[in-house]
Amino acid sequence: MSKRLYIQEVATRDGFQIEANFVPTEAKIALIDRLSQTGLAKIEVTSFTSPKAIPNLRDAEDVMRGIRRVEGVEYTVLVPNVKGCERALACEVDEINLVMSASDTHGLANLRMTPEQSLVQFREIIEVTRGSGVFINASLSTTFGCPFEGDVPERRIYELVQRLLEIGVQGITLCDTTGMADPAQVERICREVLNSWAQAVFTAHFHNTRGMGLANALAALNAGIDRFDASLGGLGGCPYAPGASGNICTEDLVHMFQRMGLNTAVDLGRLLQCAADLPQLVGHDVPGAVLKAGKADRRYPKPKWMEEAGV
Amino acid sequence: MSKRLYIQEVATRDGFQIEANFVPTEAKIALIDRLSQTGLAKIEVTSFTSPKAIPNLRDAEDVMRGIRRVEGVEYTVLVPNVKGCERALACEVDEINLVMSASDTHGLANLRMTPEQSLVQFREIIEVTRGSGVFINASLSTTFGCPFEGDVPERRIYELVQRLLEIGVQGITLCDTTGMADPAQVERICREVLNSWAQAVFTAHFHNTRGMGLANALAALNAGIDRFDASLGGLGGCPYAPGASGNICTEDLVHMFQRMGLNTAVDLGRLLQCAADLPQLVGHDVPGAVLKAGKADRRYPKPKWMEEAGV
Repeated sequence: MSKRLYIQEVATRDGFQIEANFVPTEAKIALIDRLSQTGLAKIEVTSFTSPKAIPNLRDAEDVMRGIRRVEGVEYTVLVPNVKGCERALACEVDEINLVMSASDTHGLANLRMTPEQSLVQFREIIEVTRGSGVFINASLSTTFGCPFEGDVPERRIYELVQRLLEIGVQGITLCDTTGMADPAQVERICREVLNSWAQAVFTAHFHNTRGMGLANALAALNAGIDRFDASLGGLGGCPYAPGASGNICTEDLVHMFQRMGLNTAVDLGRLLQCAADLPQLVGHDVPGAVLKAGKADRRYPKPKWMEEAGV
Repeated sequence: MSKRLYIQEVATRDGFQIEANFVPTEAKIALIDRLSQTGLAKIEVTSFTSPKAIPNLRDAEDVMRGIRRVEGVEYTVLVPNVKGCERALACEVDEINLVMSASDTHGLANLRMTPEQSLVQFREIIEVTRGSGVFINASLSTTFGCPFEGDVPERRIYELVQRLLEIGVQGITLCDTTGMADPAQVERICREVLNSWAQAVFTAHFHNTRGMGLANALAALNAGIDRFDASLGGLGGCPYAPGASGNICTEDLVHMFQRMGLNTAVDLGRLLQCAADLPQLVGHDVPGAVLKAGKADRRYPKPKWMEEAGV
């Protein structure tokens, strides 16, 4: 079997946060507990943000404290500021995930902070984590393009990666926040960061907004990336593109990698069972393709006339 | 600019044939005429099959004779038998596309012919084309897997390719008929046929049934394939997977290749205009992603508070 690929689930954070309806705390906990049994490497449980900013995740403590943590699964949470970090540490999370944007306009629009301001804040947050042993990840939004500014210069990405690592960030997630990335760009940027910073842990995070999600994952894989964020059912999505698909779909990604003979350590059957209950949980259809079509090894009965004719 | 990639449109045949409603002849002609102005390399106009077998394409002659053919665009038609070939030749098509299956069960279920029987019939059809100058393409269904039998041995594919070329076939389309292909398999098989038969013209034909369509196209591209079938709006689909996506979507494919800096010769703006009218034409939503989300170079206005604050 080939080297393990790490599949990191983000539905309960990146997905649930933009749902029209609040998913009940008990349902969140139940889903995460089921996901913990599927072989996923990491689960982004929730966000320790202000309940006003993201009412859907106002139950962060209850969820983080309510789940049954499974050995071998990392439980990460999004942390927007020092206060959120303190709340997260109180819940003994394995990892905190900081978020900044690579572009000024998206940073201001989404976080009310420029990248420079985010870096200042990250230092303060990281200071708070000293001695806790918590892993520090930073998600770099608009790595592959900004919906306001367009192209983000690649040298800017590399400069930000360098500065993040200098202030103590250990893992960096390269985020295609609004589905602008293309496979050539993904392969180029992923190769560059892997070659330049061998000590860092890089994750690729794609959205399927323009149908390129799995092609981008393939390009990242070809470049040597072995960690992928994905969202059960393809939940998530982009507030700027109503009707468009969301994050790449976890079960579709795992299905593709498994068909390719790669080792994800994920039990796809169990994962699909989790995904199957999602439409009822969120009250709408979800974009995942394998859920609708079945796995590629699904077999169909011969047409009736063939059976009857003994063909 | 890099070497041209050839984008081949199949919506008016592979798409329209399974629609619930007959698309009026004039509407088919109007769409094909618009598609002819987009830079597509080839258009599969219709199928010269029995009107009983595929009522939606019962107007094959009227459509083929009604369109305005544009220099540089190849007009191909599906031909199931000698009679269909004679009808196609009478309409002076550029190419006939023969269809066979690589697997016995799918061949019998779909065409009522085993691969061996198909090859016998292909010889008869090719005999009829002698002296016509028409290009002979053969589409090899279930190249990447059969929905009844499962895996199709790769040596069987290579044997069939060899035999098709021996009887006078000039182009071969490797078809992932029901969306079972994965990128590793695609890259392996495409490399093998390109290395073994440099004189033949190979096309890759994928379905997005399980979300892997564009990833498979990327894998074929990486192997050296330069011809791709695709369907406007992602029309098409698989009778065995209700609700699943259809053929890979032409505008999504062109959009991906263009973002990668590749040369498709297609005017994406015009193509998207054609796609935009498709939902009304067929009476339902279509799977295409770029149609919903806009191209990746789409820019969004800053949030109002930023404008007001002069940020």
